[in-house]
Parts: sequence; C-alpha cells; structure tokens
Amino acid sequence: MSEVTLGRYLFERLHQLQVDTIFGLPGDFNLSLLDKVYEVPNMRWAGNANELNAAYAADGYSRIKGLACLVTTFGVGELSALNGVGGAYAEHVGLLHVVGVPSIASQAKQLLLHHTLGNGDFTVFHRMSNNISQTTAFLSDITSAPSEIDRCIREAYVYQRPVYVGLPANLVDLKVPADRLQTPIDLSLKRNDPEAQEEVVNNVLTLIQQASNPIILVDACASRHSCKKEVEKLVNLTQFPVFTTPMGKSAIAESHPRFGGVYVGSLSQDDVKKSVESADFVLSIGALLSDFNTGSFTYSYKTKNIVEFHSDYTKIRQATFPGVQMKEALQQLISEVSTHLNPNYVPVPVPSVNLPVTPASPDTILTQEYLWSKVSSWFQEGDIIVTETGTSAFGIVQSRFPNNTIGISQVLWGSIGFTVGATVGAAMAAQEIDPKKRVILFVGDGSLQLTVQEISTLCKWECNNTYLYVLNNDGYTIERLIHGMNATYNDIQPWNNLDILPLFNAKEYETLTVKTTGELDSLFKNKKFAIPNKIRMIEIMLPRMDAPSNLVAQAKLSEKVNLEN
Amino acid sequence: MSEVTLGRYLFERLHQLQVDTIFGLPGDFNLSLLDKVYEVPNMRWAGNANELNAAYAADGYSRIKGLACLVTTFGVGELSALNGVGGAYAEHVGLLHVVGVPSIASQAKQLLLHHTLGNGDFTVFHRMSNNISQTTAFLSDITSAPSEIDRCIREAYVYQRPVYVGLPANLVDLKVPADRLQTPIDLSLKRNDPEAQEEVVNNVLTLIQQASNPIILVDACASRHSCKKEVEKLVNLTQFPVFTTPMGKSAIAESHPRFGGVYVGSLSQDDVKKSVESADFVLSIGALLSDFNTGSFTYSYKTKNIVEFHSDYTKIRQATFPGVQMKEALQQLISEVSTHLNPNYVPVPVPSVNLPVTPASPDTILTQEYLWSKVSSWFQEGDIIVTETGTSAFGIVQSRFPNNTIGISQVLWGSIGFTVGATVGAAMAAQEIDPKKRVILFVGDGSLQLTVQEISTLCKWECNNTYLYVLNNDGYTIERLIHGMNATYNDIQPWNNLDILPLFNAKEYETLTVKTTGELDSLFKNKKFAIPNKIRMIEIMLPRMDAPSNLVAQAKLSEKVNLEN
Repeated sequence: MSEVTLGRYLFERLHQLQVDTIFGLPGDFNLSLLDKVYEVPNMRWAGNANELNAAYAADGYSRIKGLACLVTTFGVGELSALNGVGGAYAEHVGLLHVVGVPSIASQAKQLLLHHTLGNGDFTVFHRMSNNISQTTAFLSDITSAPSEIDRCIREAYVYQRPVYVGLPANLVDLKVPADRLQTPIDLSLKRNDPEAQEEVVNNVLTLIQQASNPIILVDACASRHSCKKEVEKLVNLTQFPVFTTPMGKSAIAESHPRFGGVYVGSLSQDDVKKSVESADFVLSIGALLSDFNTGSFTYSYKTKNIVEFHSDYTKIRQATFPGVQMKEALQQLISEVSTHLNPNYVPVPVPSVNLPVTPASPDTILTQEYLWSKVSSWFQEGDIIVTETGTSAFGIVQSRFPNNTIGISQVLWGSIGFTVGATVGAAMAAQEIDPKKRVILFVGDGSLQLTVQEISTLCKWECNNTYLYVLNNDGYTIERLIHGMNATYNDIQPWNNLDILPLFNAKEYETLTVKTTGELDSLFKNKKFAIPNKIRMIEIMLPRMDAPSNLVAQAKLSEKVNLEN
Repeated sequence: MSEVTLGRYLFERLHQLQVDTIFGLPGDFNLSLLDKVYEVPNMRWAGNANELNAAYAADGYSRIKGLACLVTTFGVGELSALNGVGGAYAEHVGLLHVVGVPSIASQAKQLLLHHTLGNGDFTVFHRMSNNISQTTAFLSDITSAPSEIDRCIREAYVYQRPVYVGLPANLVDLKVPADRLQTPIDLSLKRNDPEAQEEVVNNVLTLIQQASNPIILVDACASRHSCKKEVEKLVNLTQFPVFTTPMGKSAIAESHPRFGGVYVGSLSQDDVKKSVESADFVLSIGALLSDFNTGSFTYSYKTKNIVEFHSDYTKIRQATFPGVQMKEALQQLISEVSTHLNPNYVPVPVPSVNLPVTPASPDTILTQEYLWSKVSSWFQEGDIIVTETGTSAFGIVQSRFPNNTIGISQVLWGSIGFTVGATVGAAMAAQEIDPKKRVILFVGDGSLQLTVQEISTLCKWECNNTYLYVLNNDGYTIERLIHGMNATYNDIQPWNNLDILPLFNAKEYETLTVKTTGELDSLFKNKKFAIPNKIRMIEIMLPRMDAPSNLVAQAKLSEKVNLEN
C-alpha cells in the first residue's frame, strides 16, 4: 500500500498507540469516517448510547490505556460531549475528540445545513471547544492533514488533555502517503533546560539533606503523567513516608511498607494528619489541588520547605521553575539522591492502616461506614475501582487497594453520572488487556439515573468483567448534606434498579440486593461471586441520610464557601 | 413585603409570564436558589434526569408556553445542557438558562473548586455559552441584578432565543425591592421605523395587486414569533392558497379551506410542488431554511416576486429592509390589504389533502407508509404532536393535523433524542393548560436510547396525558439511508422497550405492541385508548429498512452534499 485514506490513517495512528476501541455515536457527518474503523484489524467501534456517555467512556478508557479517541458529529454530537471533554481537561486525561464536520464545499457555500445554528457559521462549535482543549485542528487541506493529525495525537498524549480535530466529511476518503505510518509519532517529552533542571535537583537535594522528618505526597498527575515508577523508586531510595491525596489514590502501591495513608487536610484520619503536618519537608508530586481533594484547602503544613513537582513546572518554596517537567527532573533526582541523604535520617514509622471495622450482628442494617471498612477485603490485585462523586468517592478513601489496582474517580470535575460511562470505557480497556481483570463500580442511585443507558453498552459488548454496586440511599445524599436536607429537589423518582440489566438484554448477568451486614459479609466471602464471568448489579440498600463521616465534614465546609460574601 | 430575595424575584418574574415549571437538576451552586422555587405559589421544580434532557424539556415547554427556564449548576451542569441550548438558539425557542455559579468571594480568590477546570478561570463556561445565546449576564452586583434579570427575560421572550444568566450562590438570599414586581416586564417589540414599514407595505401591496397566482408559505418563525393570528387573517382576507414547510406545520389550521399542504421542494407531493412553484408571487412568512426543511434547498419558484417576512427584517425581491419586523408589518398589511386586492384574482383550488391509504388485509406487516397515512384519523383537536428527527419527522409531513394542534419537531438542529425530553416539557405545560390535552410522541428505537431516563420524569409527575409511540426498526434507519446501510455502527443494542415504564415505577400505565395494519386500525378505533388517563407506550414494529419515501429521497441528497468537494 503506497497510499491510505485519511480516515484510515487516523485510526492506524491510534492503533499504533494501542487505542483499539473508538467511542462515540454515528451521525451523518462522520459516517464515512466510521467505515474506516472496520478496516484496521482488531479495532472496534464502541457505539455508545449518547455522546456524553461516550466522552465519559473515552475518559475511563484513557485512564487505563493512556489515550482514547471519541468521534462525534458536528454541532449536536460534539456539544453533547462537552461536559465529558471538560472533565478530561480538568483532570488531565488524554483524549482525541474527532468531530465529523460538513464538507469543505458546504462550509464555503455557508449552506444552512441541519445541525447548524442556521446562520452559516461553521466555526462556532470549534471555538467553543477551544476553551477546553490543549490544542485544536480544523482540517481543510489534505496535504497537511496527516501531520496535523500526528501533532494532535502527540499533544493529547504528552499533555494528557483533550484535543479537538474537525474532520470534513469529504476529506475522509482522500488518499495520503502510507509510508508516513512507518515512522512512529514522537511522543517524547521536550527535554528540560539542563541548567534549570540542575538547579532544581540541587536545591531539592539540599532540602532532602537537611530534612529530619520529610514526607512524600503523591497526587493524580503522578499517575496521569506516567510518573508512578519514579515515585516508587524515590520512596524506595529515600524511605520517606509516602501519602496520597484522594485523587492520587493508587499512584503508589498501598501495600508498600512506607505507605502511610490518604491525606485530605482536616478531613484526614488523625494519625495521617499528624504525620503529614508535622513534617519538616514535603515533596509533593503531581498535585491537582481542589476543594474535595484537600478537605476544602485545609492543608496545614508545619514547614515552608515544600517542593512541588508538576507536569509543566517545578516549585521550590516560593521559587517557580517554569518548564521543568517532573518526569525528567525526578529521574535525575533519583539518580543522585542516594549520595545526598541525611545520614542522621531515621525512617519514622508510618500510620497504621488497620481499617476500623465495627463488629455487628448479621441482621444489622448496612451502613456506609460498614461497607467501606469491609470492601477492602474483597478487592483483588489488578482490580479497576471506579467511584462516583458523592458518598462513594468519599467512602473509598478509607479503603485499602491491593497491588496494581487502578482507582478512577472524578474528584475535581465531579460530574455526577460520570462513572457509569467511565466504567464502560474501563471495562472495554480491561477486555483488551486481560479479560479476567475486574472492573468495579460504586455509584449512587441518584447519579445512576443521569447515564443509565450506558449499561446497555456493557451488555452489547458482554463486559462480563463488571460489578455494578448501586448504593441506594433514596436521592442525592451529597447534595442533601450540603444544602436542603429534606428538600424535594434532592429526591429522585425511585427505580426498580435490578430490572435494568434485563431491560437492556444482558446475556450473562446476575442481580442481587444487600441490606444487612451479614448479607454483605457472606457476599464478600462467596468465591463464585468473586469470579468475573457475568455482568453483576448489586443494589446496596442504605439509610437515606447515611454518609461517610468525611463527606459530612466536607459538605459543611462546602456550604460555608458557597454562601460567603 | 417591601423586599424579596433575589432568588424569589427571579421566579416571581417568571410566574408573571406563566412559566410555572422550572427545569433542571440540583447542584451545590444552585441549591439555595432552588429553595426559592417552592416559595412561589403553584410553581414546581421538575427535577429532570440529566441536564441535556432538562434543556430539551425546557425547549418543549417553551414551544407550548412561549418561554421556559432551565436551572443548572456551574461547569458540569451547564456544559451538559449546551446541545439543548444550541437547539433552542437554532430553532428560535425562548429559554432562560440560569446557572448557579460559585460565590463572588470564591471567584475573587480564584479558589480551585470542584466543577472548575482547576485553573482559577471562572468565566470560561460563560464565554462558551455566549456563542449560543441572544445575550448573557454574569451577575455580580445586587443593586443591578433585578434589572439585569428583567432584561434577560425580556430578550429571551422577545427574540425567542436562549439567554444565559450566571447567578452567584451568595446573591440568591440578598434582598431587593419588592415593588419592582408591580411593574410588568416590558415585552413589547421595538416599533418598526414607520417610513421603512410604510415602504415595505406599499411594495407588498403593489405585488399583491399585480399577482394573478399568488401563494403564502408559512414556516416555523411564524409560530415562534407569535404571528399565527396574523397569518390566518391574511389568508382569510386574501384567499391566497397557504402552504407550510415541515417546520411550519401547525402554523396555520390544516382544516382551513385555503390550506394546500406541506412544501418541501423536490420532496413535496406532486400537486403541492406544482401549486407552489407555478405561483407568480410568493409571500413567505417566518422562514427558517435548512436542508431538511427544504428538500436540500430544492425550492424552485417560477417567480422572482418573493417577499420574506422575518422576525428582524423583511426582504422584497432583492431588497432587504433591516429592522422591519414581521408582526407589526403584517398587521399594517392586514389593515390595508382588502382595498388593494387584484380585482381579477380568482382563488384557485388548493391541492387535495386526501391522504393515500393503501388498503391492506389486517394481518399485513405494518409499514411506515401505512402508519403515517392512518395516523391523522386518530389525532384530535388540541393535540400536541412531537416527532423525532428520523423517520417520524419525515413521516408526519404527510399527516393532517386537526385544529389547535401544535407540532414539535427539531428539523433544523436535528439532535436525536430531543423529543423524549421535549415530550416531558410539553406534557408538563399541557398539565398546566388543560390536563386532558394529549401529548403524543413518535420516536425511533435508536433515538429513544439517548434520553430514555427522561421518561422517569413523566412517571414522577404522572403525566397521564402522554402517548409514547416507539417506532422499532432495529437501529438508526435515517443514518442507514444516508450512509452505511448494513454497517454495524448503525446497529443498536436491542432493548425490551415495554419494560421501561415499570422500571421507572410508572403508576397508571399501559404498554402495547403493534405489528400489523389490522392491529393499528383497531387501536385507532378503540375509544378507551383515545382517552388520556395513563402513560402509554406503544411499540410499533416496522421492517428495518422501511422509511417514508421523502426520507429516502432526502437521505440521497444529504449524502451527496456530504461528499462533495
């Protein structure tokens, strides 16, 4: 093959990066593009239930595989996806958003096509997406199109952000040189300025050498910008205690002997709070600060000796080093740190991670506290654990993840309903990596209603590696706690949730209800239940106002901020 | 009461305009605002299933009542609604979109709150919405807030477009003078420039006087900008034959003796096409041109004597008169036309509207052609008929509406899934006007999947005036016809659709399946079925590739445009 169509070129490039599922919906400006998905061996078109769900699914897939592709149609399709794309932007998730747009001839003639605003403006949606994209391309010239596609894929991957590509319907079938595909897209990071990096590393080494009670605090961007190995090496070499934020959870193995727990400012476990806040040196890696990730900004370090490593800069105390990216800087730090440790440093013990389990008689009504303290015992190595904004995202903080677990939670963006879509993406990614990898969703009955139809996509692809725990507490409990405890606007229409899988024609499935501590205990002990061989929905009945204690505290802080003048 | 809270002020203003249902979802930046909904007598908070559906519902409500209000939360909520708001912009639907945003103090401190992009930019979502809004306000000052709210409501109503209001959480409970509420918002149109209007009317009268074979062609904006009465008067006085476009359907009573049918360019019924295209004078009122509304722009008038009345300008042959708005100009025209008619004009007969019904034995498999030719017999005066983009929107063109019928179809914007939400809004509006008013939805099995959960809102509010016809043809038939006849991307996961109402805990409901012409005939003859006293879902089984003939023709035209270089 000396030439390929531009459409196929795009998908071959994605296939080279192990992006083998394409998310989205058909629409008449992308139909001929979708034909090309089927030309690439082992590539599949997910065919989601709506575009917002598709964006969520792409986000979930990217969090497992490092990059995802979403295809929508002009106007209606792309706008439906924007909240999902905004989430990927906020939370640093690599996402190529390809929009099938009208042909260049239609644009030139300003035809009043359907899916337009009826005013001949074909660039308005591109302008809107530009606000939440790392970069964009609106293709118009077949000669430069392949290099533009390469540039967009590179930026989505390297910066871990959404990138927008407008692809006119008439370009899809035009031919481009095939030999470009022989050269992989350059995905390497731009090198740091050597002098700046040298200065950073030397300053950090000096602080390390002076520290007698240092800690490492790991956050989401360490995962998203592929620095998990660097974090682990640094902990091994320094033996500093390591903590994560809620969003950073799973960035370091929680079985690591130096792992001390999850730090959430004033909402932390007492001993975690004490350990972090009494440190005389804090090495922060990949911070993605936000109210829910920091207990409403209640960080309270004793020390001013704080170093922040970010994907695009480093900060040492008050000095910012723009462009000094963490991955390379950490690698240099790792190569030099052993000879610069404080000889008097004695590794302090880390907080115990014994989870509080209150014993209960088996017919006790289940509570959030019991659920979240017990759930760790059921997790397995390699699990993907997805927790919805709400009681689940707060509850999971106190759980303990086994090795190689990946946690997915949209703590900063916090769009309710996100996890149902993200679970589809994660489950399809897991099918590609290892069909026995379990994908476990915890979602509230309120959030489930926003995106329920995406469970149909799980059924279509027979994602029999999924466990859908629906926490039924009769409405939007997180909102009740913030404001309007008994307001009817926080009520939802009650659904017969266990009828969802049969409605969607699931093939292999199981549905269960759990109401008591005894039922939960026996479920978690059931070995057959632990084997991922069907789609399972487990409805967990919980008292209406019951919530993890850290959520109750967060909600009070949030309402205060909302009403402040 | 000498003072009211700003939140209550907003809802009192809406109540004055008979906007008594507020659509949207709770989110922590709008919760205290929602408290105020309950303070206004007879006002209700719909509590939709997700924000896109809520926007669709608000659109449907506004098409019945002239204005609607949608409340979302900052970032996640508002972005989810954008596709629905874009549709209201494209199709001229009055919609106030109120977004609960973080307090002014949080904005000033650039707090990295959840639902932000994490970069301290609080204006980005406002900027995005600005592209699809008539006007916007981002409130920050309590003194000017009431007048800003009045201005926004006025513009949404007068221009029939979406308007964006960012309302900081901390302003909601601040007090504003109550006596402002004694003066109604001025909703009058700006007067036309008298000289310009005089010139327009005189020119039109001259053309009328010269015409021997004139017609009137009515489109969507005649309905949206409240000119239906003017249209009727003009037809009565002139006795010109009157036609509508697909989007204009229901802008003139179809029982009117001068109504001649629906004109869709080359896709029209032969006699309609001939009548319109042989006219020597075309009076076009409220045109909203688009490919699907015009048979891909295949209008083919014999004459150059065309007058276009629009909501914001008038065009006579090649001359444009900016600012000459149709309502006032039509009123002047009506007052003068009787004395300016061509004395030799003889009203020509209009095309017959006998619908083609092919007789069939009762066990014949139902087809689209049979369905759409029979359905008129079942419609009643006052019905609201909602048809989804796809086979339904094309099929309905050949039906005949009884008096006072309102048709809802998103022909220009064409977002699939729209009608399920729009039906909720229309049904809630109907409950307010007359609980016995029937709301009838025709939606495909593919489109239904995008927004299915909004049926839960119908169940919650016991909208027992609704008939949900689900046309099950096994996938996205409209897309198949455009491109990819057998492509799996046009397949959908099959659902057991009749299980939807019980899943959502509908109280009074009925489900039915119709497969043959005989079953349809007896259903339409069943008097009990015609009484709107429960929520009904009727699944109509249709052959996979079956489609109305005008859709087949449109699809061919569309694919051609897509691929044109």
